[in-house]
Amino acid sequence: MPRQITAYSNPLVKSVRDLRDKRHRREQRRFLAEGLRILTEAREAGRLPVLLFFAAQSAGHPLVGTLVAAVEAAGGEAIETTPDILSKLSGKDNPQAVVGVFEEFDTPLAAIDRQAAGIWLVAERLRDPGNLGTILRTGDAVGAGGLILIGECVDPFSVEAVRASMGALFTVPVVRSEWQPFLDWLRLGPGQLVGLSLDTDHDYRSARYTAPTFLLTGNEAQGMPDEYAAACDLLVKIPMLGKADSLNAAVATAVMAYEVLAQQRG
Amino acid sequence: MPRQITAYSNPLVKSVRDLRDKRHRREQRRFLAEGLRILTEAREAGRLPVLLFFAAQSAGHPLVGTLVAAVEAAGGEAIETTPDILSKLSGKDNPQAVVGVFEEFDTPLAAIDRQAAGIWLVAERLRDPGNLGTILRTGDAVGAGGLILIGECVDPFSVEAVRASMGALFTVPVVRSEWQPFLDWLRLGPGQLVGLSLDTDHDYRSARYTAPTFLLTGNEAQGMPDEYAAACDLLVKIPMLGKADSLNAAVATAVMAYEVLAQQRG
Repeated sequence: MPRQITAYSNPLVKSVRDLRDKRHRREQRRFLAEGLRILTEAREAGRLPVLLFFAAQSAGHPLVGTLVAAVEAAGGEAIETTPDILSKLSGKDNPQAVVGVFEEFDTPLAAIDRQAAGIWLVAERLRDPGNLGTILRTGDAVGAGGLILIGECVDPFSVEAVRASMGALFTVPVVRSEWQPFLDWLRLGPGQLVGLSLDTDHDYRSARYTAPTFLLTGNEAQGMPDEYAAACDLLVKIPMLGKADSLNAAVATAVMAYEVLAQQRG
Repeated sequence: MPRQITAYSNPLVKSVRDLRDKRHRREQRRFLAEGLRILTEAREAGRLPVLLFFAAQSAGHPLVGTLVAAVEAAGGEAIETTPDILSKLSGKDNPQAVVGVFEEFDTPLAAIDRQAAGIWLVAERLRDPGNLGTILRTGDAVGAGGLILIGECVDPFSVEAVRASMGALFTVPVVRSEWQPFLDWLRLGPGQLVGLSLDTDHDYRSARYTAPTFLLTGNEAQGMPDEYAAACDLLVKIPMLGKADSLNAAVATAVMAYEVLAQQRG
């Protein structure tokens, strides 16, 4: 039987609300995910929140009922609350029907089976949480084995990244690594490292990709360091006919990933 | 000689700051764009701000000097100010070196020369300003003739949309129209209307596109109404292998636009 919390000042509400902040996420090793669609995606991927807040009004919704039952069966706690408190937790005026608190998870490089997928996404010093989430969502769509984050990237467990991922955070493994350990690991087995670059004449459509392909996208503002580019097996360029000579990082990753997918599917 | 404003309470500062709000943009018919890169892009595209705020510290930067001179030569006003006030104007802790106030502009459908480009982007009920800006940026990159916004879309002049466009707002014409006038106009001349859909088996890579191609992307959450899909010459699907069966709208638009571009370039 779910506990009820209706008081704004409840200390649990404050500690969950704090998870919007990176420092508190790091201390608690927990993060927030919001919305029935994303939490259902998580449940189907075998990830359940340790705490589930839901609005009394939506208790009758079948997907909410399924979530509550699954959370309680797994030893988590479901908490019935008010729209006001859900708003406070999600930081939005129109709160979602459910807010979940999850334990953080991480995939170490060593746990990756590189042969499990034809495409792997690699991003270095990604700054924008929306880009990170969008790249995860694209990763889900192209059947990528995972997203490998190199160097100091934005937190994949930030509220904005989780939201932009539309649940893909729960379906696409995320690895965090520094550059050298990643490169050392990569060279222990098969893997074509393909870097997106402006400094090459090699068109991304005429290049040939061999699975497993690791697609490396550089920092939004600066691209990748020369050293990283030099380590790539192949540098390719997406043509740009306009004035700005740049694409959004998540867009460039997706255009590349779909070209690789098309080639690998024959 | 630029005027100086150093008082936070200056009424001009307040009225410019108000442009972050849609109601005020509509009343003043003006909008904000920030940052040397975006404002230089605008200048090169022949768009100059009517008001230009710059930090005293950056007055020596050659691009700032060029902007100030261009604004003053065109009858606008350049205003030297403090980092604090620039922060207030841009709503960011690390303010840009320059903030510009531009007159809104709009391209009517009737002003479009459809033969001027092989690709046109069309989006209906787009809700997210980041998506709108990102689509404009992609439009610049693929050499699109313009972006046609159908129905109630997010404001292309919002601070977030302008920022995400990285200046493409100034290089890619934006048309706002309702559906029926757009369709009536489209059918007056050549133009293949291609809709992105989940309800078709027609793969986007095996379809054939004929210029001018009008790529229609539906609302982020709901896709396009059946009536719009029925009016398309062709519905195509981007394969999705994952669990979520969805892509970010700006990503889907870009994957499609690059396929059309590749075909049209032969």
